[in-house]
Amino acid sequence: MTSESIRFLNRADVAACLSKMDAAEVVAQTLRDHTSGRTELPPEGYLSWSNSAGAYSRAIAMLGAVPDGAAMAYGMKLINASVGNPGRGLERAGGLSFAFDPETARPAVVAEAGLLSAVRTATYTVVSLRELGPESFDTVSLIGTGTLARVHLEAIADAFPAVRRAVVFDLDPARAAAFRDDFAARRPELTVTVADSARHAAGAAPVLITVTTSNDPYIPASWLAGGSFVAHVSLDDLTGEAFRGAEAVFVDDLELIRDNPRRIMGRLLQEGVLTGGDGSLGEVLTGRRPARRPGSGYVISNPFGMAVLDVALIHAVAQVARETGAGQLLDLL
Amino acid sequence: MTSESIRFLNRADVAACLSKMDAAEVVAQTLRDHTSGRTELPPEGYLSWSNSAGAYSRAIAMLGAVPDGAAMAYGMKLINASVGNPGRGLERAGGLSFAFDPETARPAVVAEAGLLSAVRTATYTVVSLRELGPESFDTVSLIGTGTLARVHLEAIADAFPAVRRAVVFDLDPARAAAFRDDFAARRPELTVTVADSARHAAGAAPVLITVTTSNDPYIPASWLAGGSFVAHVSLDDLTGEAFRGAEAVFVDDLELIRDNPRRIMGRLLQEGVLTGGDGSLGEVLTGRRPARRPGSGYVISNPFGMAVLDVALIHAVAQVARETGAGQLLDLL
Repeated sequence: MTSESIRFLNRADVAACLSKMDAAEVVAQTLRDHTSGRTELPPEGYLSWSNSAGAYSRAIAMLGAVPDGAAMAYGMKLINASVGNPGRGLERAGGLSFAFDPETARPAVVAEAGLLSAVRTATYTVVSLRELGPESFDTVSLIGTGTLARVHLEAIADAFPAVRRAVVFDLDPARAAAFRDDFAARRPELTVTVADSARHAAGAAPVLITVTTSNDPYIPASWLAGGSFVAHVSLDDLTGEAFRGAEAVFVDDLELIRDNPRRIMGRLLQEGVLTGGDGSLGEVLTGRRPARRPGSGYVISNPFGMAVLDVALIHAVAQVARETGAGQLLDLL
Repeated sequence: MTSESIRFLNRADVAACLSKMDAAEVVAQTLRDHTSGRTELPPEGYLSWSNSAGAYSRAIAMLGAVPDGAAMAYGMKLINASVGNPGRGLERAGGLSFAFDPETARPAVVAEAGLLSAVRTATYTVVSLRELGPESFDTVSLIGTGTLARVHLEAIADAFPAVRRAVVFDLDPARAAAFRDDFAARRPELTVTVADSARHAAGAAPVLITVTTSNDPYIPASWLAGGSFVAHVSLDDLTGEAFRGAEAVFVDDLELIRDNPRRIMGRLLQEGVLTGGDGSLGEVLTGRRPARRPGSGYVISNPFGMAVLDVALIHAVAQVARETGAGQLLDLL
C-alpha cells in the first residue's frame, strides 16, 4: 500500500500563507468566474441541533469548484457553530477547509477555517470598497468588535493606506475597549476610538461596516450620511427603510439572498419591496453592470457569503503552503 | 482567545482504537436506533468531476447524528474517490471522518476514513451473518480481494472462530495470490485458497461475499447452493434472476436502495420486479420482522451503505481515543 499524507495548516500557518498572496485578487477573480458561470456550488450539507443548554448549534459542509487556470480546483469548507460559544470564550464559528487533489480527489490540505472565513469576508469588503466605495476616505466605522471586525480593519488598513482612524461600537463596552487597545499595541499607525452608541459610530465615517450578531435591524436611513458606503456584512443591521432609501444596493449573489427570508434583504426581495438592487459585485467587475459610488446618498453592499470564495482561498493558500513547506505533513496511512 | 486543538487519528490510530471496542455492537445498536427513527441523516453534499485522464472523481460529505445514551452524537464522513486511483496504486476511495463536540459543534476528532469505512461495511456483514446467516459455517468465499475483502475476512474470522478457510477469486490473479500470501503470513490459522473462477469461488462455501468493482451483474441463481447466504456488498454482482430466486432478501435501508437505479436491486424495485424484500436488518434486530436463515434456498443481504453507521463508529473511536490518548493533538488556534 502506498503511504499517504495530508498537509495540516493551523491558524498561524494560514496567516503566514495569506501574507504571501494577494487575497483580493483571488476574491475578485472568483467573483468574475462566478458571474461567468465558471464555478460550481452544489447544495450544502446541513445539520442542526440544540446543545445541552438549548443553544442552536449547526454543521455546514460546503463543497465547491472554482477555475484554476484552464483546469478546476475542488474543495470544501466545514464550518460549524453554536450560538453558545461566545459565552464560553470561543469564537461562534469554527471548522476546517479542505483543498482536494483534482487527480485523485484525496483531501490534500486541511486548514483551520475560522481565519480563512473571516479573511474571505473582509476581502470581499475590500474589493467592494475599491469598486463601489467613496473615492477617498481616511476613517471607517465598525459596529461590532469581534474577530470579523479585527480582520476587517486589518484588511482595510492594508488595502487603503490613507485610512488612519476607526470609530467602533460594541454592545459590550469591555470588548470595544479591548479591540481599541489591541490595535493600539499592534497597529499604532491606526487610531481607534470607541463611540458611545451605534448611531454615533455610524455617523462618524463615510464607510460603515456592520459585523454584529444582530437579528433585529436597527439602523434607519437617517443615520447614514450622503456620500457614504455601508458594508452590511452581518446582514440584519439595516432596516427596510434604510434599504429603500439607498442610492444603490449591490449583492454577491441575489439568489442566495432571496432564498433566505430570515435576513432583512431576503424578506424585502420576497415581499417585492426591493426588486434585485443594482446587480452583483461580480457583474460590476465583469462590466455587465455599472459601478455606482455614493453621491448625495448612500450605497449598500449586502454580501450573503459565497462558499466558492472559500474554496478559491483555500486553494490559493494550499498552493503557497506547498511551495513554502508551511504547516505539518501528517501520515494518513 | 482560547487556544483550541483537534485530535488527529491516522489509520494505525483508528485500528488501535477499533481493537479496544466492540464495533459489531455499535453497528447493531445504530441499526436498531435507525429503525426506531432515532438517527438523523440530512441530504449529503456531492461534487463530481472528470480528472485530467477523464476518470470519474467525486467528493461526498455525509453529515449525521446518532443516539449517544440519552444525548446525541454528531459527525461527518468526507469520502472522496477517483476511479483512476487503483491504477496509481491507491485505494479507490479515501477521506476523513469527524466527530463533533455536541456542545460547541467544533470538529473535535478527525480520522482517516478509509479503514473506518471498510470496517463499517465488514461489521455490517458480521451482524447480518449472526442474524441471517447459516447456523454454522467453517468456510467463506470472497469475490474480489481488495481492502474490503481483507477487512471482511479479518472481521469474520474474529467474530466466527469456527471459520478456518476462505476461497477467493479476483479478476487479477496476482492480487488474489498476494491476498492469500498476506493472510498466510499474518493469520496462519486461516487457509486461503485461490479459485480459478468466480463461479468456483461462489460454489465453494455456504457464505459468499462480493467485494468487487463490478457494474455488470454476473452471478446467476444457479451458482448459489441451497443453505447459503450472500452478502452482496458490492451491489452489482447478483443478477436479477438471482434476486428473484432468493428465499429472502434483506436490506439496510430500502429507500436508499430504491432511490439508486444504477444498482441492480434499485432497478428491480423501481421496475416492480421486487417489492421490498423481507425487511431490513434493523427491523430484524428490533423484532419488527422475522429473521430468515437460508433453508433449502439462499438468502441475500443487500447493504447500500449507511452514513449513520460511520458517524456512530467515528464517535465510538473518538471516545476510545480520548480515553487512551490515541493519535495526535494538533493546535488549531
